[in-house]
Amino acid sequence: MQFQVTTELIEQVQHLIQIEGDVRLRQILDEIHFADIAEILSELNLADATYIIKLLDSEKTSEALMELEEDFRERILDNLSVKEIAEELEEMDTDDAADVVAELPDEIAEEVIAEIEDEKHAEDIKELLTYEEDTAGGLMAKELVKVKETWTVAGCVREMRRQAENVTRVHSIYVTDKEGKLKGRLSLKDLLTASTKTHISEVYIPKVDYVNVDTEGEEVARIMQKYDLEAIPVVDHDGLLVGRVTIDDMVDFIKDEAEKDYQLAAGISQDVEADDSVWELTRARLPWLILGLFGGLGSVFIMEGYEEALAKYKELFFFTPLIAAMAGNVGVQSSAIIVQGLANDIVKGSLFNRLLKEISLSLISGITLGILVILFGFFDGMDLIFSFTIAISMLCVIIVAALVGTFVPIILDKRGIDPAIATGPFITTSNDIFGIFLFFSIAKLILGF
Amino acid sequence: MQFQVTTELIEQVQHLIQIEGDVRLRQILDEIHFADIAEILSELNLADATYIIKLLDSEKTSEALMELEEDFRERILDNLSVKEIAEELEEMDTDDAADVVAELPDEIAEEVIAEIEDEKHAEDIKELLTYEEDTAGGLMAKELVKVKETWTVAGCVREMRRQAENVTRVHSIYVTDKEGKLKGRLSLKDLLTASTKTHISEVYIPKVDYVNVDTEGEEVARIMQKYDLEAIPVVDHDGLLVGRVTIDDMVDFIKDEAEKDYQLAAGISQDVEADDSVWELTRARLPWLILGLFGGLGSVFIMEGYEEALAKYKELFFFTPLIAAMAGNVGVQSSAIIVQGLANDIVKGSLFNRLLKEISLSLISGITLGILVILFGFFDGMDLIFSFTIAISMLCVIIVAALVGTFVPIILDKRGIDPAIATGPFITTSNDIFGIFLFFSIAKLILGF
Repeated sequence: MQFQVTTELIEQVQHLIQIEGDVRLRQILDEIHFADIAEILSELNLADATYIIKLLDSEKTSEALMELEEDFRERILDNLSVKEIAEELEEMDTDDAADVVAELPDEIAEEVIAEIEDEKHAEDIKELLTYEEDTAGGLMAKELVKVKETWTVAGCVREMRRQAENVTRVHSIYVTDKEGKLKGRLSLKDLLTASTKTHISEVYIPKVDYVNVDTEGEEVARIMQKYDLEAIPVVDHDGLLVGRVTIDDMVDFIKDEAEKDYQLAAGISQDVEADDSVWELTRARLPWLILGLFGGLGSVFIMEGYEEALAKYKELFFFTPLIAAMAGNVGVQSSAIIVQGLANDIVKGSLFNRLLKEISLSLISGITLGILVILFGFFDGMDLIFSFTIAISMLCVIIVAALVGTFVPIILDKRGIDPAIATGPFITTSNDIFGIFLFFSIAKLILGF
Repeated sequence: MQFQVTTELIEQVQHLIQIEGDVRLRQILDEIHFADIAEILSELNLADATYIIKLLDSEKTSEALMELEEDFRERILDNLSVKEIAEELEEMDTDDAADVVAELPDEIAEEVIAEIEDEKHAEDIKELLTYEEDTAGGLMAKELVKVKETWTVAGCVREMRRQAENVTRVHSIYVTDKEGKLKGRLSLKDLLTASTKTHISEVYIPKVDYVNVDTEGEEVARIMQKYDLEAIPVVDHDGLLVGRVTIDDMVDFIKDEAEKDYQLAAGISQDVEADDSVWELTRARLPWLILGLFGGLGSVFIMEGYEEALAKYKELFFFTPLIAAMAGNVGVQSSAIIVQGLANDIVKGSLFNRLLKEISLSLISGITLGILVILFGFFDGMDLIFSFTIAISMLCVIIVAALVGTFVPIILDKRGIDPAIATGPFITTSNDIFGIFLFFSIAKLILGF
């Protein structure tokens, strides 16, 4: 049932652009959902994509533009006149329009806003631009349906019909007092089931969740998820209703946040994508590699310090990548679980219990892995004492790595630092050095070199 | 503005349970949102939590139960009678009720369903249990508002008032033919703005996105996100409208999926949480550690093969953890970016271009890191030729690791295997072995031992 953007369709579109078959092109594309138009655009080159944007109604292209990758959208907008951009903005919801304007160079942004015919719309966009990105103010849209508590249901329905024209999805109807202060909400369902003469003040729900313009985006997402809200009203510092955040924006926000954490765990420090430039990717990746390099050089130093063991126990040195790998893996596992637990607010109980738990976990894993190492040593013809030494030091390294992986994020979190930075290369690198140092110290203790 | 569950409140609740102050307890808790009740319950011990569940109205507790961790909910339900569980289910939406029943032991599940008074509700739950988890059928709820195309707007509003009683959020009104086949949809907005005598067939939107009962959950999430849908109707194999999936379920689904990928990248193979048992955590973590162990033992083998170099170039062996770390880090970075790109369907362009890009990326990083190694060698008093050897072999290792990290996920994806399994320990371990092998081979070529 789903529409598929096929290679044939793309080729047909490219051909029609070449021969300027505008009528046929419009015929074909008018039938297609804006999200699919966006998919087609992203398969075209810049000139062809711009051609389509100029050809179709801005009602459709404004929505397709919002679905494109930011970079590509910016390049298309570069090819449009100030007037053409203003026409696109005219059709967008205020939150999308504000995002687009924020991407434009300052002087063009001003010209574009001045070109917008609907003055209220232009003012709303300008207002939204004053809020910080990633706050409720920066995420919200001005489009919403609001009624005054003094109205009747009938008057309310009348007024709503008017307002609903500009609102894609109604969700809730917000109730304000005469000054515009948020008082409560009304569901469409309540409105459907109430008699027409009733006053809103008698039927509205005075309890309503709301956030402030400067509430952090993450907090907005948390509240909306916790209370299963599909939209949340936003008030300014005087309690005046100024906008609302809807769940579709939150879905994008939650996805972006998850991707950022994932990248952080993989040692990528900025929000980059596979198709970004080599330079952008290098900037996001190289710092973590340099950190890893210093970690590795640290291990070189440590081993230089144990050089005297080389003559008698050269095999110890063959095991260093294994020890580093185990320390790294265990550390990453522990930190990933704790970081997720902290994010979902489910890390409960005393620190002492968690300590006991991590130690039992590491003991089980460490002993299992130790037995495997001893078996390997047996078949590889290693001295039994030597195999035991490896197994026991590995066990200690695993325990310490699990504790570091668990408690570094907890401590960071307690100090108000995002624990996600303690995953990935950070934990791996510190556990590498620490693991190798511990490994040689314990081996020295047992073997006495 | 947000309600906060404080330690004082928890203590007060615990105290009131102890002295059986039911009236006061009800007074306090009735004021509190079900999501906050859930938060309170999760802070209590099993007996106290069960006490609260039995005390409050099932209208509230049924929703609070759904917000709890699965394990804890199961343990509370173990303490309830069949009749009490049935009362909770009575108040739940069908999708939640089916999820709860699925968690119950088979014989109890049947008894509980038999106890449900609303026969239609019981039948709906039974129907939902027949679908696979993680398909549209398994995710959907039976609650929805549907009207027939032959009705008038007035009749439709009347019928909707009746149906809306059971539906938490209306979203869209679905239009079916006489047999119940999905024909289209109608927005509440359209209904508000149409004259009461109009027939539905004249105002409904015949184009409607829908999914099949056996569409995969991931595909449902993709469609809903792409087309910005807040609910999507589900049809059976005959095209009959059987349910709908709403965005709040999808938000949970998207979050779970992101968490699974994150855990996979960290080397955790099952969906576990910080508070799961030691045994569950071990089962999810140990397999990857064993994989890492085999990788490490592989490195031991390789180094044993290069033992003859030990006499002259012992420092080579000190660098093995560094080489393994760099190979692992680069591989994880490359694979993380590609896996995300594949998931978001933005990996475009030819494989050859991607190859060139990864090679240029690795060259930039590798040369920078190589210069740092040579500087380190200079201050550490290493031979210049030796430092160069390390730097050049490290550069080759980085290039190969980046290529493996990039192309293994792409190949897996082409073969229909989830590329996410190729992140984390899998890439790290194979790059560790391969990197150390490459390192010694190149060193041997240059230094000639």
